[in-house]
Amino acid sequence: MNPELGVCYYPEHWSEEMWATDAARMVETGLSWVRIGEFAWSRIEPTPDDLHFDWLDRAIEVLGTAGLKVVLGTPTATPPRWMLEKHPDMLAVDAQGQLRKFGSRRHYCFSHQGYIAECTRIVRIMGERYGRNPLVAAWQIDNEYGCHDTTVSYSQPALRGFQRWLANQYGSVDALNEAWGNVFWSMEYASFDQIDLPNLTVTEPNPAHVLAFRRFSSDQVVAFNKAQVDVLRPLTNAPLLHNYMGRILDFDHFKVGADLDIATWDSYPIGFLSDRLEADEAHKKAFLQQGDPDMQAFHHDLYRAVGRGRWWVMEQQPGPVNWAPYNPAPLPGMVRLWSLEAVAHGAEVVSYFRWRQAPFAQEQMHAGLLTPNNKPAPALAEARQTADDLAKLGALTQTQADVAILFDYASDWAWAAQPQGVEFNYFRLVFSTYRALRRAGLSVDFISATGALQSGYKLILAPGLATLDGDLEHRLTEGCDLAILGPRTGAITRDFQIPISGRPGLSGLDCEVDLVESLPPNVQRKVEGGGAAQHWVDRLSGDAPDLLTFCDRTPALKGENGLWYLAGFPDEALWDRIVAMAAQKVDLPLHSMPDGLRRRETEQHFFLVNYTTAPVLWDGHKIAACDVTILRKDRHDQS
Amino acid sequence: MNPELGVCYYPEHWSEEMWATDAARMVETGLSWVRIGEFAWSRIEPTPDDLHFDWLDRAIEVLGTAGLKVVLGTPTATPPRWMLEKHPDMLAVDAQGQLRKFGSRRHYCFSHQGYIAECTRIVRIMGERYGRNPLVAAWQIDNEYGCHDTTVSYSQPALRGFQRWLANQYGSVDALNEAWGNVFWSMEYASFDQIDLPNLTVTEPNPAHVLAFRRFSSDQVVAFNKAQVDVLRPLTNAPLLHNYMGRILDFDHFKVGADLDIATWDSYPIGFLSDRLEADEAHKKAFLQQGDPDMQAFHHDLYRAVGRGRWWVMEQQPGPVNWAPYNPAPLPGMVRLWSLEAVAHGAEVVSYFRWRQAPFAQEQMHAGLLTPNNKPAPALAEARQTADDLAKLGALTQTQADVAILFDYASDWAWAAQPQGVEFNYFRLVFSTYRALRRAGLSVDFISATGALQSGYKLILAPGLATLDGDLEHRLTEGCDLAILGPRTGAITRDFQIPISGRPGLSGLDCEVDLVESLPPNVQRKVEGGGAAQHWVDRLSGDAPDLLTFCDRTPALKGENGLWYLAGFPDEALWDRIVAMAAQKVDLPLHSMPDGLRRRETEQHFFLVNYTTAPVLWDGHKIAACDVTILRKDRHDQS
Amino acid sequence: MNPELGVCYYPEHWSEEMWATDAARMVETGLSWVRIGEFAWSRIEPTPDDLHFDWLDRAIEVLGTAGLKVVLGTPTATPPRWMLEKHPDMLAVDAQGQLRKFGSRRHYCFSHQGYIAECTRIVRIMGERYGRNPLVAAWQIDNEYGCHDTTVSYSQPALRGFQRWLANQYGSVDALNEAWGNVFWSMEYASFDQIDLPNLTVTEPNPAHVLAFRRFSSDQVVAFNKAQVDVLRPLTNAPLLHNYMGRILDFDHFKVGADLDIATWDSYPIGFLSDRLEADEAHKKAFLQQGDPDMQAFHHDLYRAVGRGRWWVMEQQPGPVNWAPYNPAPLPGMVRLWSLEAVAHGAEVVSYFRWRQAPFAQEQMHAGLLTPNNKPAPALAEARQTADDLAKLGALTQTQADVAILFDYASDWAWAAQPQGVEFNYFRLVFSTYRALRRAGLSVDFISATGALQSGYKLILAPGLATLDGDLEHRLTEGCDLAILGPRTGAITRDFQIPISGRPGLSGLDCEVDLVESLPPNVQRKVEGGGAAQHWVDRLSGDAPDLLTFCDRTPALKGENGLWYLAGFPDEALWDRIVAMAAQKVDLPLHSMPDGLRRRETEQHFFLVNYTTAPVLWDGHKIAACDVTILRKDRHDQS
Repeated sequence: MNPELGVCYYPEHWSEEMWATDAARMVETGLSWVRIGEFAWSRIEPTPDDLHFDWLDRAIEVLGTAGLKVVLGTPTATPPRWMLEKHPDMLAVDAQGQLRKFGSRRHYCFSHQGYIAECTRIVRIMGERYGRNPLVAAWQIDNEYGCHDTTVSYSQPALRGFQRWLANQYGSVDALNEAWGNVFWSMEYASFDQIDLPNLTVTEPNPAHVLAFRRFSSDQVVAFNKAQVDVLRPLTNAPLLHNYMGRILDFDHFKVGADLDIATWDSYPIGFLSDRLEADEAHKKAFLQQGDPDMQAFHHDLYRAVGRGRWWVMEQQPGPVNWAPYNPAPLPGMVRLWSLEAVAHGAEVVSYFRWRQAPFAQEQMHAGLLTPNNKPAPALAEARQTADDLAKLGALTQTQADVAILFDYASDWAWAAQPQGVEFNYFRLVFSTYRALRRAGLSVDFISATGALQSGYKLILAPGLATLDGDLEHRLTEGCDLAILGPRTGAITRDFQIPISGRPGLSGLDCEVDLVESLPPNVQRKVEGGGAAQHWVDRLSGDAPDLLTFCDRTPALKGENGLWYLAGFPDEALWDRIVAMAAQKVDLPLHSMPDGLRRRETEQHFFLVNYTTAPVLWDGHKIAACDVTILRKDRHDQS
Repeated sequence: MNPELGVCYYPEHWSEEMWATDAARMVETGLSWVRIGEFAWSRIEPTPDDLHFDWLDRAIEVLGTAGLKVVLGTPTATPPRWMLEKHPDMLAVDAQGQLRKFGSRRHYCFSHQGYIAECTRIVRIMGERYGRNPLVAAWQIDNEYGCHDTTVSYSQPALRGFQRWLANQYGSVDALNEAWGNVFWSMEYASFDQIDLPNLTVTEPNPAHVLAFRRFSSDQVVAFNKAQVDVLRPLTNAPLLHNYMGRILDFDHFKVGADLDIATWDSYPIGFLSDRLEADEAHKKAFLQQGDPDMQAFHHDLYRAVGRGRWWVMEQQPGPVNWAPYNPAPLPGMVRLWSLEAVAHGAEVVSYFRWRQAPFAQEQMHAGLLTPNNKPAPALAEARQTADDLAKLGALTQTQADVAILFDYASDWAWAAQPQGVEFNYFRLVFSTYRALRRAGLSVDFISATGALQSGYKLILAPGLATLDGDLEHRLTEGCDLAILGPRTGAITRDFQIPISGRPGLSGLDCEVDLVESLPPNVQRKVEGGGAAQHWVDRLSGDAPDLLTFCDRTPALKGENGLWYLAGFPDEALWDRIVAMAAQKVDLPLHSMPDGLRRRETEQHFFLVNYTTAPVLWDGHKIAACDVTILRKDRHDQS
Repeated sequence: MNPELGVCYYPEHWSEEMWATDAARMVETGLSWVRIGEFAWSRIEPTPDDLHFDWLDRAIEVLGTAGLKVVLGTPTATPPRWMLEKHPDMLAVDAQGQLRKFGSRRHYCFSHQGYIAECTRIVRIMGERYGRNPLVAAWQIDNEYGCHDTTVSYSQPALRGFQRWLANQYGSVDALNEAWGNVFWSMEYASFDQIDLPNLTVTEPNPAHVLAFRRFSSDQVVAFNKAQVDVLRPLTNAPLLHNYMGRILDFDHFKVGADLDIATWDSYPIGFLSDRLEADEAHKKAFLQQGDPDMQAFHHDLYRAVGRGRWWVMEQQPGPVNWAPYNPAPLPGMVRLWSLEAVAHGAEVVSYFRWRQAPFAQEQMHAGLLTPNNKPAPALAEARQTADDLAKLGALTQTQADVAILFDYASDWAWAAQPQGVEFNYFRLVFSTYRALRRAGLSVDFISATGALQSGYKLILAPGLATLDGDLEHRLTEGCDLAILGPRTGAITRDFQIPISGRPGLSGLDCEVDLVESLPPNVQRKVEGGGAAQHWVDRLSGDAPDLLTFCDRTPALKGENGLWYLAGFPDEALWDRIVAMAAQKVDLPLHSMPDGLRRRETEQHFFLVNYTTAPVLWDGHKIAACDVTILRKDRHDQS
């Protein structure tokens, strides 16, 4: 497969005379794809049922005939103002009970059936009009589900939907009372319609109640997306996709992805570093204008799993953005670096957001490939250079990695419902795992906790997986030579109860969690021989051998039968020891990487990606600052 | 009196077959008391008037016949879901105007008369059924009043209750306007029903308004409790008690306690350290798994006063809890240490919370004496050892201390209404006083600001007491050889006005506060000869001799006629100097205690309690880490 | 002009017998002015239309005949409780949708026409009664507009007013959609009544929407004030004034000031240091009991511009206040220092707040010249000494400075709508500019961005001015020899769009902003030769010569034709370099001032003001700690 480049474009923002010039300049820049339409509902249908497709017809025609493949977005993330007059109760409600008003975007509640009907209506009209248009080569459904905390809504439609969902899940309210342990604090219900949403309670609500609501809320996103898929499938053969946002975990991307053909995501490395990453000040300063060296790769690998191999970057940051606490510019070379890194992880397309910076409205401070007054922004030349690099690189094939991380969105919801330690956070734990593997130069796959058996791995890690069962144990033991679980793995049932049969509950590993502790950030539990646990400690018993022990002689790592259980949230030193021990056991070659240099293997190449501001000499190769070195496996020269 | 142990148990959480085994195992562990029933309303009355006492009859029978004394709780802290259908306006409202919904506990407003009637109804039914049952040896009313900020409610019933209360207090609205100084900012009212609750005002409300509302809110708790007391008194001879929570100051415990026979409190040393104590990071780290060395003793001594000598620990932390920001496990020995320390301060009973960790609902991460799957948790053996220690110790008698602190809940409300410096806080000031006395090895009593004269003290300290009058001056001068007042003592009238007659307003001490200052945490006012004031400084004039002066020559401590006035919030060094000066004056022997070692005297013993992780050698005795050394006065061996 | 002193007094707070004594004592203290009445509505009109002016007649008589000139306040900042029964919807609503209730002050929405009618009614009655009374020498309208965040209200009257205002501004909703770029995210409106207030949106609202609402909100204050002016003008010849609060930027003071005769402001140096100033801990500690050395002067100079030369300090802090996070006392000498400094900057009157500390209500902890029990507070003697100083000083004349700062309230609203970096803030940038000029010993004028051409300056600085146009460029180039713009100057149109013609858009300067960056506080962009930019960087292109460059060779300062553009938010070192370069270019003598010593020039004098706690020797003069040295230009002795 030969990776391609693309761009996001808003013909409705510019005078029609500019379209042809823009299209030609896109092609000149080496772009192959253009995404349009996803926020244009008010131009398509300015008043109810008054449809204006002429401009969109012409835009597709102009772009397509210039040689660009069009991704057409359904406009459902931005219902026009008149929609609220038809459906006054369609707005979401936040956890404080506040209506989330019109005036920006994503102003809808996923549970509002009237709005879903409006969405399928407009999508059907668009599908009928453009579904067989050969210039429309893919469809994007909606935009960035869950962005701006929009997955969870405390509206009346959500309440009624939740009650129906519970009735469906539990059959009887007695079964629900039993499953949730509602005898505690006399919280028992006599009917489903007595069950409220779990916000604004006097003290914390039952975590089982919270987790059920989070599962429901995720399912509503899945159903919302599927409603549009079901309309479009008969009307087009083009692939259907969605553009996910980074570090959004509020709905199960694997479930949404199962209904789509391609997963795409929106990659804003510098915004994420400033806004969505726990890291110390020195790290944030060192990578201020490059982004964290593992954050993009993590998402690339995760979305490759969500897309079952097919994935894109739909929005690639091209310059300063508008939405982070601080918005510095990328260093020269970084836009190309990010693009090539995505390709190394298997992106079919890298699409820049956006063609020309808008001079108006919320994102006017968000850079594009062109400035508002149509001058080249720094990223334009880097995009052109990347296109040249890709042409030179040719085909590129992904292979299964030796190592995988089992990822589970529901575990994030569970731990958020009852973190037990204020810093404990599923993403943070998994990301620390991923970082450790990358420091060892490994390529990593993600696998879904709820998917089919995936075998052939030397090593699978399943940190923090809330719920384990026999099936999952089977998938782990069949899927790899060694599975590392813990900490806090298998700690609760699906209904948020501690399993009476014991935690983590593996038949092949004689190891039980007797009590758990959360620790403040200034406290560590040292491990004999080096490294420490932080934030979280599981106290273990059982006859499985101790592979590592804490300085107080309690077990830090126990293992037997290809199953290891790790008793704490490791710091970097402990992670490095554990990865080394595991590698030795399963015969996995490691490559110790310096800070900021990362390595990714494809069938044909090794990519060496240097996120630092200085050249790095590694294994005989000199990788320039903010640059990528690509080594072909068949010959030892650099591309 | 021989101290005893107990445990909190929830028969409704477990299958009935387990009850007898549990009871036998409790007795084996050396426990004498078992508390049940306080959250069981939904099982006692699943739907209105449909009473199910059979299971509770059997539970009492099984536990009682096993040899345990039962404490039966009234279930009014957790009204069932159907209660809201009968009384839709019974929920409390927070300061932001948000309804505090069903789904956890304490979801009621103390001012709702309909709910109070429901409470007295169910309590009467229970009293009639169990009041003469010899197996029921005590009654607990409700649970942890004020926990989760539930004392103060901004509901409509609270508004109407407050207006009635004001009419009752002031007689006429003109009197109220005058007392509050409502001429200021044209805040005058024409009738009581114009007076709103003091929340959501444009800028701060009149502090007199706030203080009145806080007094009212406290009175509502007193009345709520008394309504149940009035029902139970004729129906039982068993003692009535309530379990207060730590560092809850929102209602006047002395007034609630006056209607009860025994004060009990819920002691969570590690949770309190993490969640409810101002201390620097080093201190919190040093005592992370032990709790603060003075926090438990402070409450023991305070609740001994609230219970007029009779008090228990109703809930003793046995392992990690679920509700603090961080929840580490107690170090080995600490559960026993806490238990013995309580006994040293006069606890009649120390009762562990809870027997077996629940696998479900909000507190599933809260350890018990047993794990959820019925294995012994670490605390079980420590409870057993404590029972043996108590058997060996025999009778133990409390004596009046030489030193007392005057404690006044209303002062906390007053200073919270207008702290003047963001760190100024009544509890913090009083706790710093208590710590200073404990560093000097003193045993301390608390006395109520509103109680009867208590005499025979060498020294009484009355820091931060908002309001002083002639009666209180009389009680101080008659009660002790030396009274130390200040800072911020006698600063306002009961209606939150600065007394025109001057502050602090003592006839025996020629000393007046001319102005006050609050200071940021990085600023100190040094005292000549050592130590400093922080947070707060009263600038003093008057002819009473200066006993200490600040470096700018203004008085730091003035005194005459057995009355001293302290001009600032002392740091540790200044407190130590003042305690030493006072001790010399009233001939009080001091015992300088190292950090983390504390000393408590009873009639028969000295207890030396070591909260640190290393053995301490003190006065010829070696006290092991996390251990207690008990010295009998009649012979010099250790128990 | 000979500066005078005054005081704020509340006859309604004290028994009538005290008035004459108070008045005599004011005169004895050297005070000439007394402000009364501004919070007395409930005493003037206790119930609707029941007017009680007798007491106010007597108060004016007693004060006036004692020799004091009365400033009479309109009482509209504190509507009585009955007003809410007449106008239940008059309360403001905060951004969270919460009603801002009765119980303090400023409880009205500026858009409520019914309340405005009540205000003009009571003001007409007062004007008719006292407008020709010779004892009433000035009128204050309302009190501290905007204090407690009261400019912006999200009420229904505000919504309706905003929709009318928009219709008036834009004519058609299509024009508004175009001006705001509402095509973005399908935010287009079909009618003005579809436009909501810009709060509680799902993510940030359109900044054009926010800025329009901020402009509207400011205009409502202007209209509210003008309604009272229009009533009073025909009824009195006394000057009309308002007392602004420090660092309130929510409405355009220049526009309010245009309708009044004198600008006055309320100066609380120690409260501002604690509560309203970004500064490091060391600076706040060094000036804890003195206030920031530039904060008062900044406001003096700004309000001199607002008052078109005529201005007062209406409320001068005399001791600890009640409202800051920490409230220490001023050091001895500071009250006199603040008073003399105000005079140096041109204050006609310095009036202390307040005569006697109230013993009741919200401000009972706010010091006065007297204590609540009528003893002299420390400030009384300093006021007396200041009166003597002023008598000795004689007449004092202000002259136009060589340097001016262009100040624009709307720029603050614009940057607050989209700061792009969390620390970026218009006031902070302008204040850093002002500080730099003061470190160089310069006297500074402020000029309004919207006023008439003011010429004769050597240097004008226009940092952060949101919107530039040809007219403003003309005023700058005609007004001075050198104008320094940037950073972030001319960045948006009046409708919050990036100008397609380029930023900053000056015809005389070939310099364009290509992209902007915001930086976290720990990152700086160093400038060749010393100094650095922080917080904000504009990346510049264009043919104007580079006067300074960053270490990455990009321009830091470009200039030609008497116009310089500065590319970042300078640190102190960079500011000092730029000021020195500019001074050399326009032949401006500088005087390097040590930390805490400041210099102000009048026609007759140099004032040297020492805010530090140690004497300073400067240019041959020794200025004592917390003292002012006044040098006459005609002879070189000190007053």
